[in-house]
Amino acid sequence: MSSVSTFDIENYLKERRALIDRSLDRYLKESKERPKTIHKAMRYGLFSGGKRLRPILTLAAGELFGGRQKALLPFACALEMIHVYSLIHDDLPALDDDDLRRGEPANHKMFGEGIALLAGDALLTEAFHLMSRPQVARLLEPGAILELIHEISRAAGVGGMVGGQAVDLEAEGREVDVATIEYIHVLKTGALILASVRIGATIAGAAPKEMRQVTRYARLLGLAFQIADDIMDMADHAGGDGKGGKKATYPAVVGIAAAKSRARELLSQCLKEIEVFGKKADPLRGIARIIVERAL
Amino acid sequence: MSSVSTFDIENYLKERRALIDRSLDRYLKESKERPKTIHKAMRYGLFSGGKRLRPILTLAAGELFGGRQKALLPFACALEMIHVYSLIHDDLPALDDDDLRRGEPANHKMFGEGIALLAGDALLTEAFHLMSRPQVARLLEPGAILELIHEISRAAGVGGMVGGQAVDLEAEGREVDVATIEYIHVLKTGALILASVRIGATIAGAAPKEMRQVTRYARLLGLAFQIADDIMDMADHAGGDGKGGKKATYPAVVGIAAAKSRARELLSQCLKEIEVFGKKADPLRGIARIIVERAL
Repeated sequence: MSSVSTFDIENYLKERRALIDRSLDRYLKESKERPKTIHKAMRYGLFSGGKRLRPILTLAAGELFGGRQKALLPFACALEMIHVYSLIHDDLPALDDDDLRRGEPANHKMFGEGIALLAGDALLTEAFHLMSRPQVARLLEPGAILELIHEISRAAGVGGMVGGQAVDLEAEGREVDVATIEYIHVLKTGALILASVRIGATIAGAAPKEMRQVTRYARLLGLAFQIADDIMDMADHAGGDGKGGKKATYPAVVGIAAAKSRARELLSQCLKEIEVFGKKADPLRGIARIIVERAL
Repeated sequence: MSSVSTFDIENYLKERRALIDRSLDRYLKESKERPKTIHKAMRYGLFSGGKRLRPILTLAAGELFGGRQKALLPFACALEMIHVYSLIHDDLPALDDDDLRRGEPANHKMFGEGIALLAGDALLTEAFHLMSRPQVARLLEPGAILELIHEISRAAGVGGMVGGQAVDLEAEGREVDVATIEYIHVLKTGALILASVRIGATIAGAAPKEMRQVTRYARLLGLAFQIADDIMDMADHAGGDGKGGKKATYPAVVGIAAAKSRARELLSQCLKEIEVFGKKADPLRGIARIIVERAL
């Protein structure tokens, strides 16, 4: 596949990441950034070296079908705000109780539990504030924007990400089977990754058949991503701090080798779904490879 | 004022409360109500005997200008979901650490901190899911719905309710002046009460002058409501459990007598703003009287 070897995915990701960072910064600056402390906590969460996977998926899926960056960016950034809020809440003592996030103090370790909780609430709310701006309604049909907000709120809410976190929490410390783990993954991380891809394609006006293709790509990618993440997490905690074994994860149930082989299989299925788009799908292809292959 | 004495506000509130309860129940049932536990926690928060002040204000302001209940209800219920989520998060140990809410165990005492946190997140997200439904877009212009979502997300977010909670949290245990307390109130409870009234009037198509009148009514009401609430809270905790003195409140700074006189003054200003609407404004008038006079 020469199309993959000639496309510089690292550079693509770097450029898109910078674009997302600039846009998030601009959106925040356009509000007064008051009260001060909670805004600091929101910024600390937003600008702490995330991969920007979800917003880049929105851009990449949108670009594949000729979408305009200007129309894609508010939704891409809203999806990132939702993702970041979920990380801040996830790290709280009430849930995962993690003191560190990407090697730095978690939000509640920097600002206290109360401000961290509120910063998460604020980011979630801000995502909807961003998507409903008059500036966005000048770029897209208001009715179409409502449909996007509806899809994103389903993916982020009790029928998606938050529901998955709840089931995950209840599964903690219990024996779970592979079907339950996949159910948790589909909700907890899959729903928002799926929405990220679909939102981009929808904004760009993808045809129904194309929507079905990128939807299948995103479903497979979401599952592969979570398994890859869990494999790396297990490796990180192999020293025995106990955290690697706390959660209901795929490698914990089927073993590392079987988990890797499942991730490899999902990646190849996922790439097959977008084969038809040729070189234009190089970004989507590169993203899938990078996030799965790092764990193999 | 014979118009007040002949209008049965108690009965009006009872009827509207029942209407809100039925609507909230229906909206929840229309989703699958899975996963189970988090839905139980959401229901526990939503149906625990709240006054339904915010959604009733939306209905009352909407009815004043001839708005249709069918179009008002999704927004009224979304505002209540946002209010309930804020109570659930507020009661968590990270913020107020209250074990009881209206004499019953707080959400996290019933379901654990993790599920309570997530139930709050889910209710906030569900509010936006509700307002962006296709059914709502058949009743109102999509562009107008986006403006309503934009206003509600500003009132609920960092520039409103959540921002106010953050400033309140930082003020805890510090000496604060009356100006700071009023600033906290305007954000923390005022913004959502203001939005509740304005959203109703906007949906009903109130004229710009009418919007200004109900906006002033709502601003004054919001402040009077919070002072009344703090007066009653102080009386509740007079026995000396320490909770009444923990927070930056109006009566704690100026004393009960001055707080009551300020509440009375705000109520009378607030009633003056809607005098021009005559008997049609009896519900808005009755609501203002009831929520302030209970503390006098």
